[in-house]
Amino acid sequence: MTLTEPDSVHTEHTPLSEEHLTVLGDRLRSVLDGTYATERAVGRATFPAEGMLRDPSLDVEASREWTLGRLLELERHGFGHAGVPEGANSVSDPLTAVMAFEMLAHGDLSVTIKSGVQFGLFGGAVTNLGTDWHHETYLPDITSLKLLGCFAMTELGHGSDVQSLETTITYIPETDEYEVDSPTAAATKAYIGNAAKDGTMAAVFGQLIVDGVGHGVHVVLVPLRDESGADLPGITTGDHGHKGGLLGVDNGTIRFSRVRVPRRMLLDRYGGVSVDGVYASPIDNPNRRFFTMLGTLVRGRVCVGGGAGIAARRALSIAVRWGLTRHQFPAAGRPDGVLLLDYLTHQKRLLPRLARAYALGFAQNELITDLVHVQGPTPSTEEEQRSLETHAAGLKAMTTWFANQTVQEAREACGGSGYMSENQLVEMRRDVDIFATFEGDNTVLMQLVTKALLTDYRKEWSELDRTGVVQATARVAGDAVAEATSAGLVLGALADAVRRRPEETTLVDRRWHALMFDERARHSLEALARRMRAAAKVRGDQFEAFNALGDHVQFVARAYMEQRVLTAFVDAIDALPAGETREVLERVCSLYALQSIHDDRAWFMEHNRITSGRSKAIGAQINDLCRELRPHALSLVEGLGVPEKWLGAAILA
Amino acid sequence: MTLTEPDSVHTEHTPLSEEHLTVLGDRLRSVLDGTYATERAVGRATFPAEGMLRDPSLDVEASREWTLGRLLELERHGFGHAGVPEGANSVSDPLTAVMAFEMLAHGDLSVTIKSGVQFGLFGGAVTNLGTDWHHETYLPDITSLKLLGCFAMTELGHGSDVQSLETTITYIPETDEYEVDSPTAAATKAYIGNAAKDGTMAAVFGQLIVDGVGHGVHVVLVPLRDESGADLPGITTGDHGHKGGLLGVDNGTIRFSRVRVPRRMLLDRYGGVSVDGVYASPIDNPNRRFFTMLGTLVRGRVCVGGGAGIAARRALSIAVRWGLTRHQFPAAGRPDGVLLLDYLTHQKRLLPRLARAYALGFAQNELITDLVHVQGPTPSTEEEQRSLETHAAGLKAMTTWFANQTVQEAREACGGSGYMSENQLVEMRRDVDIFATFEGDNTVLMQLVTKALLTDYRKEWSELDRTGVVQATARVAGDAVAEATSAGLVLGALADAVRRRPEETTLVDRRWHALMFDERARHSLEALARRMRAAAKVRGDQFEAFNALGDHVQFVARAYMEQRVLTAFVDAIDALPAGETREVLERVCSLYALQSIHDDRAWFMEHNRITSGRSKAIGAQINDLCRELRPHALSLVEGLGVPEKWLGAAILA
Repeated sequence: MTLTEPDSVHTEHTPLSEEHLTVLGDRLRSVLDGTYATERAVGRATFPAEGMLRDPSLDVEASREWTLGRLLELERHGFGHAGVPEGANSVSDPLTAVMAFEMLAHGDLSVTIKSGVQFGLFGGAVTNLGTDWHHETYLPDITSLKLLGCFAMTELGHGSDVQSLETTITYIPETDEYEVDSPTAAATKAYIGNAAKDGTMAAVFGQLIVDGVGHGVHVVLVPLRDESGADLPGITTGDHGHKGGLLGVDNGTIRFSRVRVPRRMLLDRYGGVSVDGVYASPIDNPNRRFFTMLGTLVRGRVCVGGGAGIAARRALSIAVRWGLTRHQFPAAGRPDGVLLLDYLTHQKRLLPRLARAYALGFAQNELITDLVHVQGPTPSTEEEQRSLETHAAGLKAMTTWFANQTVQEAREACGGSGYMSENQLVEMRRDVDIFATFEGDNTVLMQLVTKALLTDYRKEWSELDRTGVVQATARVAGDAVAEATSAGLVLGALADAVRRRPEETTLVDRRWHALMFDERARHSLEALARRMRAAAKVRGDQFEAFNALGDHVQFVARAYMEQRVLTAFVDAIDALPAGETREVLERVCSLYALQSIHDDRAWFMEHNRITSGRSKAIGAQINDLCRELRPHALSLVEGLGVPEKWLGAAILA
Repeated sequence: MTLTEPDSVHTEHTPLSEEHLTVLGDRLRSVLDGTYATERAVGRATFPAEGMLRDPSLDVEASREWTLGRLLELERHGFGHAGVPEGANSVSDPLTAVMAFEMLAHGDLSVTIKSGVQFGLFGGAVTNLGTDWHHETYLPDITSLKLLGCFAMTELGHGSDVQSLETTITYIPETDEYEVDSPTAAATKAYIGNAAKDGTMAAVFGQLIVDGVGHGVHVVLVPLRDESGADLPGITTGDHGHKGGLLGVDNGTIRFSRVRVPRRMLLDRYGGVSVDGVYASPIDNPNRRFFTMLGTLVRGRVCVGGGAGIAARRALSIAVRWGLTRHQFPAAGRPDGVLLLDYLTHQKRLLPRLARAYALGFAQNELITDLVHVQGPTPSTEEEQRSLETHAAGLKAMTTWFANQTVQEAREACGGSGYMSENQLVEMRRDVDIFATFEGDNTVLMQLVTKALLTDYRKEWSELDRTGVVQATARVAGDAVAEATSAGLVLGALADAVRRRPEETTLVDRRWHALMFDERARHSLEALARRMRAAAKVRGDQFEAFNALGDHVQFVARAYMEQRVLTAFVDAIDALPAGETREVLERVCSLYALQSIHDDRAWFMEHNRITSGRSKAIGAQINDLCRELRPHALSLVEGLGVPEKWLGAAILA
């Protein structure tokens, strides 16, 4: 047995997209595809799947070469720059961008990420932060891959803390130029995709300084390399070399030593120096300007979360299909060994995660709809924009964490064969690992979610403070919280119906799930608000006072996002007619909801939301749901939408 | 910045073993080294550390070549075959073997595992299952690496289920030979180290058949390759190629097509065919014979657990040292950014794991002592042997799971730089991943632990059944359980002292920890015994009745092992004089114990062992302990015993 050669996987005569699904699997797929069923079905039918997986034994250089080649091939098939406008006259198309990223994530993730760097980040910066001249001059070459670029934000000394970037972009009135400089070693741009080899230009984030005055972080285009690939004067690039994964992406470092570029190279949609050498911006408040500029990058987070979700689906597809094939240990009535997926312990490794994959998929669909609305031609409100940013941050964190845990669990569920690269799981695990860190470190993103929730009722707090109605505080704040966290009206109504006698419901009563999710989100936010208020009054080390709240901040964000996810699931089910598909999905939703409650059952007991008896019963109910869903395992995997032939795992051949 | 070349790491003039420790760090190291402080100190001083880390960018072929070269180099330095006797007249030395494995695990893990395959598994099989002729004929060449061998146990169709192996070893009286055969594709030996390239002989596990009668699994030596490296007639080897990690180990497959070997090639210490063609064994019961043969392999599990523990220590050393260097986000009173390890959330990622690394280290020391006793010159009882097997299985599972989680957490705690191979964490994570599966899948090993616990009072059960004293069952069984689970007398006495009024103790009262650990182990085992009994009475599908108990079986094993680990920690502290070292270790022990209780706090509440108020207080106490230990973070890392210069992480340079 030798390692399966990528070529040999694809020598069959039937096209890779041909599938024979069970009736239920086909229906589940339509439901999970949801609003985007057509786009996704077309994507599966037309995606150039031949050679979509990289040979894992390629070294760094060969991986980079293969990845760039694959990107060019996809471009020839029209799967390249999807969503990035080809010039000033075409419009940005967020839906096509997100759909293309999803489809790419079914194959090698280096290709997915290199495409994301080129089109989503570099192309996105030019599109969203640039103006007509930038669009006309650069978008045609960006979309045709003639110009490969970098998104040079992160610095060695400043990962998540973009506002503290040290790179300077200083306006030089004498020559009407900007001078880009890395004043310290910590200012070195780091982990930048396309920087080690392929990038010939970078969108560089730095502090804009005009006439000695700082105007905060702006972005300027800086050419990096000449046609031979050599660094231009003042530019020093470096190569991160071998990484934990994504070997096909040439991540590297960039240092600038007083590099001059013409004034027009600044991406000046939200601020720049006018022809008479004066700084001007359509947004007066520097803080708001900063977040507006970063906010345009929200699409990247939506894509990364979506891509991680696809990776988790691929891993679950492999592990569940293998569990339906593999026998181990003879047992009573099973002389040839027990089918792996008939072990309850094995079911519990995979089926609750399968349920969560559905749940996160429905939430992702909603998020895409919000993105398409906010970035579409119809104007959106500031509140809608802010809500999109919060949910994109939260769902990116939730889904990338989920993907990492799920791919690892799938690898272990396949035992020794899971460790062989020809079965795809270890490569996927390596690649998806960093999804939890890039496009915003997950822990920092969850802090953003909680910050947004707390902001929603700051006003109420200060008014109460002035009138001194201290006793009423908790209750009133509670109502504000209820508003902030009632992720959907449907869920709120469900919860209210059983609020008085929650323990009289069954464990699969959706109203009870809604109530528990609501209580978790509501109470944890209320309590955090109180603790924040107390911390702000502490004399002495303010940092330490807030430092103690770190875990609580994370919990609030998670509780809120879980509620969003359940809402999306319930909304999707409510749209279905009665029948087997709906019945199966009701069980899948219960399994998701109960596993979420079970994971936090200590919190629910600590806060007297469930009794110890009910807590134990949840575990038994999860077992029952696993047994009930076991006969539908294949259909449920088909519903995840990953064509079997795309999996490329040797154990399934 | 380019990838650090392995050579350039080692060009300094000071030797790699030179260290300057804090006073506390030095003392902590002595305590954790424990009984083996001398051996470990000598190991650190004499280990040939130059070039101990592999260049992660090497491809599969180059990695294998480098690994074999390093193994030969270690052999020249006398660090090779440690513990394997060089001939029939020298004795097996378990302590030296375990110490050598630990030391090797400070460097590239492919070297560690290839060494383990050659000396621990292949050499161990010849030593422990063979007799004089095998020792005289093969051990000199095995120890000098002239003969590289395989341990061919696992088959494609049979991973954990060794008793169901399909390979046959049939005695042929006509020629006084054995015929080794793989009757089906599922019988193919798989994932076998040294099989793809370097191995020229294999210790093959298969069903021994003599005159048509099966005698269960035995082991026979079979030559694989000629001097040119080509498969011998009847042998077909395969190459697993690229894997999730351990690229330097040439894992592969072996199939046998009616291969004949002389009768003396059977490793016949526990059974074989005599000169007159009749099967004979010193152990009559085939089942006991099987477990006796596997039992001799216990040393491998002790080594693998120990090696995984070292990997976790290396990862913690890198992440904590980085957390003491790196600043992020300015805050009140900290204009240059907060030191990463000053964030409570960051402390909580690393310090409880640091505490657990100490705890598991003390338990590993005890296990080594048990191994040295059982495999040493003094005779040991069957009970001692069985106890060693149980604890080796349990601690291997606990430590390898811990290592996987800890290395991943360390990688994430180092953010993007954690993902760069030059910082070692991702390579370590890849390599240690499979430690959870090989040498016994962790889930299966934990089942063995529980099985051993249940066996201990089976007799009591059946007696009670006969006399019909149903009411007394729970109580009496409880006492039996108490005996089975009282991992140490000290801990039992501590627990008893507070059993009546547990909530009157403080949260850092060791007596309360002892009580909680005891209650968890005792009650979960009692309950499982009752459920097992009920399941055995179920009519219909017996498999399904037991299937429902899978999670419970895992919990019992874990609860028992946690108690063992705490006992080892308490024993180590009890031996110390009063003073700073002891005070710090008391806090480390409390952090370990409270985190363990906290992780299971839902169980404790469900079983009314703690109130919801006390459960919340545990979280706050963990925060306090993290804050108290934070100033000692560097010393605690030094205590883990990994010389700073061996870490090889570019971010610490």
